[in-house]
Amino acid sequence: MTRVLGIDPGSRLTGFGVVDADGSRYHYVDSGVIRTLEAPFPERLRIIFEDLAQLIATHQPAIMAVEQVFVQKNVSSALKLGHARGAAICAGATSGLDVAEYTPRAVKQALVGTGSADKAQVAHMVRQLLGIDAPLAEDASDALAVALCHVHQTPLQQRIHNTQESRP
Amino acid sequence: MTRVLGIDPGSRLTGFGVVDADGSRYHYVDSGVIRTLEAPFPERLRIIFEDLAQLIATHQPAIMAVEQVFVQKNVSSALKLGHARGAAICAGATSGLDVAEYTPRAVKQALVGTGSADKAQVAHMVRQLLGIDAPLAEDASDALAVALCHVHQTPLQQRIHNTQESRP
Repeated sequence: MTRVLGIDPGSRLTGFGVVDADGSRYHYVDSGVIRTLEAPFPERLRIIFEDLAQLIATHQPAIMAVEQVFVQKNVSSALKLGHARGAAICAGATSGLDVAEYTPRAVKQALVGTGSADKAQVAHMVRQLLGIDAPLAEDASDALAVALCHVHQTPLQQRIHNTQESRP
Repeated sequence: MTRVLGIDPGSRLTGFGVVDADGSRYHYVDSGVIRTLEAPFPERLRIIFEDLAQLIATHQPAIMAVEQVFVQKNVSSALKLGHARGAAICAGATSGLDVAEYTPRAVKQALVGTGSADKAQVAHMVRQLLGIDAPLAEDASDALAVALCHVHQTPLQQRIHNTQESRP
């Protein structure tokens, strides 16, 4: 059994998702959103770091998976996102976790089978694979997606059948 | 007496400088460069965070001062710098320090008296104000400059005289 903490970092909202993987089965453990919103910037980074360090202490994941970002609208948004990712990755690295990074394309490829899938398709597959009926917050869903990408980077469609069969 | 930790963050080299300010006098405490260079990226962030946390524990500064950055050559360099700044600011914020940010223009204004001063002028003033004869590593000098900017944001030229008089 491998426990993965997926992270979707942002300077205002940071999604997290914890997934257990056991062979071809996935189990949802936890997910949510760390809201920093209008706090002063250094305080936002402290909240991201400390909330994630607390989550890691609680759930004891084996690895942190983070979406790798190359493009941003502009330099200012890239700087802000970089700070938030830096805080999140620090929380993992200083807690002794390996940190794996996946491109958005790799996440889409792993979950939907094509790197050009849209966000709704990815969100649908996250709920399917984890047997979640209720809608998820977008950032929590994205974090679960990168966690699922880590546990299995090849197309997962064929696994849905197994996952659905294994439900009570 | 106020002790300030100045930081010049970078994804390969992070400068730090510790300065004591007592009224119109400045005292050099420590400076140097944290080298992360070719380590994997999450490991670089861990090194920045943990080395700075250790420095903070050793020197017990009252505040962290960091140069504020708005412009970068491109989105990719902005993202990298953002990560390093995020790791550095996290080290300060999680150690309970206030974190102050100053634009490069404010640093130049404070040290040289004009926001359009060049790097060599700033480096010269850092050595003058702190009574340092030997050359400093560029990143260490930049970190000391932002620390000095924090302790006194108005032009400092008139203080050099006092500083020089106070030397043995």
